[in-house]
Amino acid sequence: MDKTEARLTLAVDAMGSDKGPQEVLEGVAQAVEFSPRSTDFMLFGQEEILSEIIEKHSVLGNARVSVRHAPEIVGMDEKPIAGIKGKKNSSMSLALLALKNGEADALLSCGNTGCLMAGGAIRLRTLEGVERPALCTIWPGRERYFTLLDAGANPHAKPFHIVQSAVLGSNYARLALGLVRPKVGLLTIGTEEGKGNEVIHETHSMLKDIDGSILNYAGLIEGFQIFENVVDVVVCDGFVGNIVLKACESLSKLIGSFLDEELKRNALRKTGALLSKGAFRSLKQRINPEQFGGAPLLGLTKNVIKAHGSSNRNHISGAIKIALDLVQHDMLSQVTEDIRETNELLRPEPLPVKGLQAKEK
Amino acid sequence: MDKTEARLTLAVDAMGSDKGPQEVLEGVAQAVEFSPRSTDFMLFGQEEILSEIIEKHSVLGNARVSVRHAPEIVGMDEKPIAGIKGKKNSSMSLALLALKNGEADALLSCGNTGCLMAGGAIRLRTLEGVERPALCTIWPGRERYFTLLDAGANPHAKPFHIVQSAVLGSNYARLALGLVRPKVGLLTIGTEEGKGNEVIHETHSMLKDIDGSILNYAGLIEGFQIFENVVDVVVCDGFVGNIVLKACESLSKLIGSFLDEELKRNALRKTGALLSKGAFRSLKQRINPEQFGGAPLLGLTKNVIKAHGSSNRNHISGAIKIALDLVQHDMLSQVTEDIRETNELLRPEPLPVKGLQAKEK
Repeated sequence: MDKTEARLTLAVDAMGSDKGPQEVLEGVAQAVEFSPRSTDFMLFGQEEILSEIIEKHSVLGNARVSVRHAPEIVGMDEKPIAGIKGKKNSSMSLALLALKNGEADALLSCGNTGCLMAGGAIRLRTLEGVERPALCTIWPGRERYFTLLDAGANPHAKPFHIVQSAVLGSNYARLALGLVRPKVGLLTIGTEEGKGNEVIHETHSMLKDIDGSILNYAGLIEGFQIFENVVDVVVCDGFVGNIVLKACESLSKLIGSFLDEELKRNALRKTGALLSKGAFRSLKQRINPEQFGGAPLLGLTKNVIKAHGSSNRNHISGAIKIALDLVQHDMLSQVTEDIRETNELLRPEPLPVKGLQAKEK
Repeated sequence: MDKTEARLTLAVDAMGSDKGPQEVLEGVAQAVEFSPRSTDFMLFGQEEILSEIIEKHSVLGNARVSVRHAPEIVGMDEKPIAGIKGKKNSSMSLALLALKNGEADALLSCGNTGCLMAGGAIRLRTLEGVERPALCTIWPGRERYFTLLDAGANPHAKPFHIVQSAVLGSNYARLALGLVRPKVGLLTIGTEEGKGNEVIHETHSMLKDIDGSILNYAGLIEGFQIFENVVDVVVCDGFVGNIVLKACESLSKLIGSFLDEELKRNALRKTGALLSKGAFRSLKQRINPEQFGGAPLLGLTKNVIKAHGSSNRNHISGAIKIALDLVQHDMLSQVTEDIRETNELLRPEPLPVKGLQAKEK
């Protein structure tokens, strides 16, 4: 079903940002202006605070913007399960509940990633046929952006989960990166047959089985190829993905600090740095994945997008744009279809219902 | 046994470098000058090529330097097992054989890492009690260098293998980084109990059991803490370690290219870059792990050190210095002792001999 003409509601967890709710609401205001009139925004947070910001803001006074009071806030240091189950009245929990109840079609949150992943798994169901959700991240590569998943939603991944992640990521890359047939690569060590480990061998073999029909599998890739745009969708288990993501983010910051220190070491370097400051600003933008739309938690019955905690208003509105695109282009239906085909090809026997797994038909 | 006074022989695979044998031999020449007179250098490679370089070089004419002819070369694209078993007369294979026969105490190679790991495993035995070797790398952190292992020698790691890697890495960090009690951290996702996966839970529990007596276990660390010098020895399985290592190396290069592009974008930036060029040179040095001694393949009966393929003469001589230190301080005896204690505490039942595992007493 094409939802372009239907009403569409985006839930926004307004409280999780490092920059405070004002910045989140400025991002929402941008989205109110560029989105179709059929789009509503449901803001979750402490009513007093949000209303005060809205009152002073001409765009947010729009009838399409409403506030839902949520007295609690999930902190950045909160443990995943405790942050969700222990704070039922947090902006994050109540927003997830609105998704579950069908009051909203998609959720954007800048809050605690671990809690959002746990909350998505606890409060929402996985999409029909999907066994585990996957967190999908967008990264800057040498020539263009690429996606990497799972970035940590499922650290106990079995080969079939990784295959399903590849299907989810491929669908997301089509919409978010605008690619017709995104190339999928399986992250491993050494690309010759026999290298890697058992999970990789089994996953590789299954991905070859669905290559061509369901996705465009380009084969095994190594760590040094990630940033070289050899593929558009890098797939791995959530344990590896999370570690690589965090290590790379932290290395970027370290290099930034080193550069800063070196440029301030003497007067000559300082003068040079002043003249070429535009280069450093551009560099920072190019290696900053925050600017690009946030990370969706894929494989759930609703679209859940995690924006970075330090996102500014432009990042927020960018993430909202992608969230609305996912709903308008009905990515979930396409994913459901692709997952059904994948399961038919690779897993003919229904599995017993367990954990997060969706009910069998 | 302290080998400071005994004769000591270093085997050098002179053919594997991207920069050619000349650069390797220049590094050896530096080492001939700084090493004690009791140190011999056995160079493996194509005799004609090596002899021509040596003839023109005053230092290498030293009687402590000898050449062993090896007609074959292991290429950078060679597959691990094929590169070793298929090229028995390569400089790498013959150098490993010299270690095995007791003609040399340590080996330095800039050659193909996969082949060197496979060769170490095939040609040499693991140290008594060690089940799998581990490749240990040295990285630049915010304040100082740190080590990360396993960087790919064992991609099928069981918890006990990771524990043994921690013991190996801890011994190496003592010597190479000059630390009395290096802090060891287990790389995972989310540091709260229950996060991560089964392998992590079991490894964490075993590391706690040997904390204090055999090593200094600081607990779980996440990807974003790697570069922050929270610990001195980051331990993980070879699958994760190899991917993180390669992804980070490639990200460094990407950021370098982006910076370069941005600085050349207009005349103003170019002028600025010229004034502050010292900063970029220093930055490159600070984030370049090659300068620091190479990566040892730990857990074998002999010291095997892998230097980066693009190492220059200074990197080579630095790596040789560390190789000689390992022999002179008899790291292997200390490691054997620590592994024996670890095994007594954690694995009271002898395991059946299998694969790479050393013979039970």
